[in-house]
Amino acid sequence: MIYTYLGPAGTFTESALLQVPGAADAERVPASSVNSALERVRSGAADAAMVPIENSVEGGVSATLDAIATGHSLQIVAEALVPISFDLVVRDGIDDPSRIRTVATHGHAWAQCRGWAEENMPQAEFMLSSSTAAGAMLLLEENDVDAAICSPLVAEQNPLTVLRRGIEDNADAVTRFVLVRRPGSLPAATGADKTTVVIPLPEDHPGALMGILEQFAARSVNLSRIESRPTGKGLGNYFFSVDAHGHVDEARMADALAGLHRISPDLRFLGSYPAAGLPGEETVAVDRPSVERHNTDAAFAAAARWIEELRARHA
Amino acid sequence: MIYTYLGPAGTFTESALLQVPGAADAERVPASSVNSALERVRSGAADAAMVPIENSVEGGVSATLDAIATGHSLQIVAEALVPISFDLVVRDGIDDPSRIRTVATHGHAWAQCRGWAEENMPQAEFMLSSSTAAGAMLLLEENDVDAAICSPLVAEQNPLTVLRRGIEDNADAVTRFVLVRRPGSLPAATGADKTTVVIPLPEDHPGALMGILEQFAARSVNLSRIESRPTGKGLGNYFFSVDAHGHVDEARMADALAGLHRISPDLRFLGSYPAAGLPGEETVAVDRPSVERHNTDAAFAAAARWIEELRARHA
Amino acid sequence: MIYTYLGPAGTFTESALLQVPGAADAERVPASSVNSALERVRSGAADAAMVPIENSVEGGVSATLDAIATGHSLQIVAEALVPISFDLVVRDGIDDPSRIRTVATHGHAWAQCRGWAEENMPQAEFMLSSSTAAGAMLLLEENDVDAAICSPLVAEQNPLTVLRRGIEDNADAVTRFVLVRRPGSLPAATGADKTTVVIPLPEDHPGALMGILEQFAARSVNLSRIESRPTGKGLGNYFFSVDAHGHVDEARMADALAGLHRISPDLRFLGSYPAAGLPGEETVAVDRPSVERHNTDAAFAAAARWIEELRARHA
Amino acid sequence: MIYTYLGPAGTFTESALLQVPGAADAERVPASSVNSALERVRSGAADAAMVPIENSVEGGVSATLDAIATGHSLQIVAEALVPISFDLVVRDGIDDPSRIRTVATHGHAWAQCRGWAEENMPQAEFMLSSSTAAGAMLLLEENDVDAAICSPLVAEQNPLTVLRRGIEDNADAVTRFVLVRRPGSLPAATGADKTTVVIPLPEDHPGALMGILEQFAARSVNLSRIESRPTGKGLGNYFFSVDAHGHVDEARMADALAGLHRISPDLRFLGSYPAAGLPGEETVAVDRPSVERHNTDAAFAAAARWIEELRARHA
Repeated sequence: MIYTYLGPAGTFTESALLQVPGAADAERVPASSVNSALERVRSGAADAAMVPIENSVEGGVSATLDAIATGHSLQIVAEALVPISFDLVVRDGIDDPSRIRTVATHGHAWAQCRGWAEENMPQAEFMLSSSTAAGAMLLLEENDVDAAICSPLVAEQNPLTVLRRGIEDNADAVTRFVLVRRPGSLPAATGADKTTVVIPLPEDHPGALMGILEQFAARSVNLSRIESRPTGKGLGNYFFSVDAHGHVDEARMADALAGLHRISPDLRFLGSYPAAGLPGEETVAVDRPSVERHNTDAAFAAAARWIEELRARHA
Repeated sequence: MIYTYLGPAGTFTESALLQVPGAADAERVPASSVNSALERVRSGAADAAMVPIENSVEGGVSATLDAIATGHSLQIVAEALVPISFDLVVRDGIDDPSRIRTVATHGHAWAQCRGWAEENMPQAEFMLSSSTAAGAMLLLEENDVDAAICSPLVAEQNPLTVLRRGIEDNADAVTRFVLVRRPGSLPAATGADKTTVVIPLPEDHPGALMGILEQFAARSVNLSRIESRPTGKGLGNYFFSVDAHGHVDEARMADALAGLHRISPDLRFLGSYPAAGLPGEETVAVDRPSVERHNTDAAFAAAARWIEELRARHA
Repeated sequence: MIYTYLGPAGTFTESALLQVPGAADAERVPASSVNSALERVRSGAADAAMVPIENSVEGGVSATLDAIATGHSLQIVAEALVPISFDLVVRDGIDDPSRIRTVATHGHAWAQCRGWAEENMPQAEFMLSSSTAAGAMLLLEENDVDAAICSPLVAEQNPLTVLRRGIEDNADAVTRFVLVRRPGSLPAATGADKTTVVIPLPEDHPGALMGILEQFAARSVNLSRIESRPTGKGLGNYFFSVDAHGHVDEARMADALAGLHRISPDLRFLGSYPAAGLPGEETVAVDRPSVERHNTDAAFAAAARWIEELRARHA
Repeated sequence: MIYTYLGPAGTFTESALLQVPGAADAERVPASSVNSALERVRSGAADAAMVPIENSVEGGVSATLDAIATGHSLQIVAEALVPISFDLVVRDGIDDPSRIRTVATHGHAWAQCRGWAEENMPQAEFMLSSSTAAGAMLLLEENDVDAAICSPLVAEQNPLTVLRRGIEDNADAVTRFVLVRRPGSLPAATGADKTTVVIPLPEDHPGALMGILEQFAARSVNLSRIESRPTGKGLGNYFFSVDAHGHVDEARMADALAGLHRISPDLRFLGSYPAAGLPGEETVAVDRPSVERHNTDAAFAAAARWIEELRARHA
């Protein structure tokens, strides 16, 4: 197996990839952009790509949403959640943040640790690097850099001294990643799955989006993410990218997707795959009692049998 | 074939039965009540029963609605519409309604012709008979009866002189009848069909009836009749008797029925059968363009194939 | 106050009327039909009429439903529930039902006690009377009548010996009655009220009835009765007669009625009035927690204030 | 009046601002970010800010959507559409694109003109600048720059020679901008208006978003834009930013907003303002016939009067 991911090495995307069983020992090739990672999968240069799709603070990752919605079909086979946390790594001999005078890191990381930095290392001057991994390299290579802020994985992959862990201002930020392959066999249903679809909005009328959502709601199918993205054909023309709880092997999900297909035949099925929790957390199965009796697999099967019997009455 | 129908002979129910191809030459046994007609079919004493189900002035015929909703299953295989019209038949020698002094008929018939009678035969005194056929018999047998008001069929079946046709006050009254058999093969779809179902209301909450109607509306299935009837288990407990345009062989009808079955598994399918027009009128096919593209058989078939392909991806 | 009611005296309708405070001491005039009772109110000959509207076994009372839906407006100001129960009254000297040889009563009463009669008075021959009161009169006046079956009120109002109480086969049958007046002031809201409306179905399309029901469901308003009745303008043309839980003084009911008025401007408001329980039972208030937070009076008031403030921004 | 806008000068945002009557002669202060432009308005340092909200190719502008959804309230008072078009400006003496060896511009502009460039100026090497205005400055100041790609406004505001107009690959790209002020009086309704609201999703259940959309659809209110944005409180927690056709002065819009307020009382009204067309195009009024009869102002007014009369019946 050859994996690719949005690089460089040591960023949160590689952390996500390392959650995939076997990935730690497989070949992992960083890519310079989401598009280039996905192109490697499409071309066969890589078997699978890990890319970010959604951030609890910044929202949907447009590059990913657009890239998997168009072009050659791809399939999501897994998801991974990574808490967005930062470590403060320092030069040997520094044991007090208040003595740090220079700190190298990426702009986003600096923005997310600024509160902590102002309080705990008020003298530190910020030095911009192109990634948190690059900031850590500066610390290793340049004498005038006292510290760097980097992801836990970068700290772990390099000979760095961690002075403080978890210095981010928002302790709950999470990024969600998806593992994408060329279309192939579906992961088996686990009881706690997600299904991702891309649905072009059929027409511009008051009920168009409602007609789509009704297909899910009428079958007790919960949505965990919905994003509108422009089709590029002028203001007001959208497609929707949706994650729903459940697996296409479950009758209510299959029936909802069939309903969507009738309304919007160009919809794109991007996969059914196990829902993930944060590392160390147990994945919670869909709350079964919340599936109304008439939307269970048993109810669908009984109804289908009944209709078949009615129709079998033809001489 | 042995037919039974709500008697006595000559009433509108027999007119309805005579619209059935072959019934004119078959054995026709009048029954004293709707229940007794249906029991003859259930027991095998008759092959089919013609009974009234709905009147454009009086509404649903409760006896029929209740009798086919409970007990051993029956199946509607045809419907027939009969205009409710009355003839004035007279004793030989009477050629002017104003000279009529006595007129025999059933109470309902008298009620529906009273306006005409007051204007055209102001001297006529009403004599009550147990049916319009019985009134016509009085005219034949009794010397002091000048006239009778009866159905056109009674006038035709007996040696009676018709002085005026169509003396009813409301010229548009229509009664709808259904031909009922023991469950067997389904009549083929014609493109202008009806399907009748009996649906117990699942629960007493604001959306219960709406949940039922949504199954039809979401698939562009029109209803032509809806009646609520008590289940006998206390005020507020209902079942619904519904006629919908379409045949169970059509995908949108089958899908609507399957949805109903999931909500209310005890629903009773009473048949899909050709829609009828008034005698002499052409039956109008369902307005095909009004079936939205996403509710056509083709859309259902394409969606079902798509789902099958998705699920076939399992190794 | 002059009350009228569907007669004759002693029937269940008079029992219903006697539940009205003050009616026991007021003038009570029996009428020969529902229509004639309501006409007395319309003409001013009576102040109020008690008429049956719904029976737990037989369903809606068409005569009442149609009469209050058309003609000069009337208003329902109260409802009453009466259990349908029958007493066996006997000639002096009879103390064992098995010795009864003749029993007089109305056809409906006989039908509802036949099971008990076959078991307990197998020798009894049925003599038809025009009402249960008339049957009791026969017992008082004719020597060859051993017994009568009548309502408890008839037994109480006449010098009759009751041998058995409650001989009906279905112990739970209930009839619901409404007290009707000329339109006037509304009864105050009690927290457990009903509102009755008559709604012509606007158009024959799949969503027409759904559009009506949505007005209730979207505001958490429960329906306790829904009946379709023909308008007389041909098969498929209906109006709906609906009872809903709540009072027009409650915001969610007023908003639902306003929505109905927009869809079907010819709807007829027939009143908001206190819900009744069976005699001796406490009336249960609407289950308040079942009204969703966004459908409370407070939520409606807050939303109305907010809109007013927005619109007040105009210079 | 002091206007601010997302700078620098000459970009499409300034073009949008110049569509505002009077803005051409008013003070116009560029801001370095959307947030800083809006803060100037909040603090009173500027009277109004023009900021981008939506691009037909790139989608919603998150910075704007988030900034107007939180913090001190702001109000949208106008919108402006600007076609995204680029000019090729050149050094004196160059009259053939194929001879251009170096071209300076912003990365986005380069991306949107690359197809044209590869075909028409295959020798040109791309030189990155921080904005298209900065690229044009390079052309004016540096001898080794042959050409620049810039917005038409930059070309017009500077002493530049335009060799080609409209070299963008996608001729239909449009960006939509909004003019934002501190909350104050509402622009009058014109018959072709938009209303913008921010709606926190009340709960995570299948029907939550549907409940919101129903408020619009039930009143025939069309949506022209819907975006989901994270609240920052973890994956799956959203608010929706919505543009709807109509003005709060129209009854159906006011009723829809009142319905939303009941469901989601923390929603934020961001204004009703005239809908804009592209420069030179006439603005199209809402297609009035598409507003169903029951959602007209007249229907709402009639329903409100009817309810008032019912309630006035109280003694």
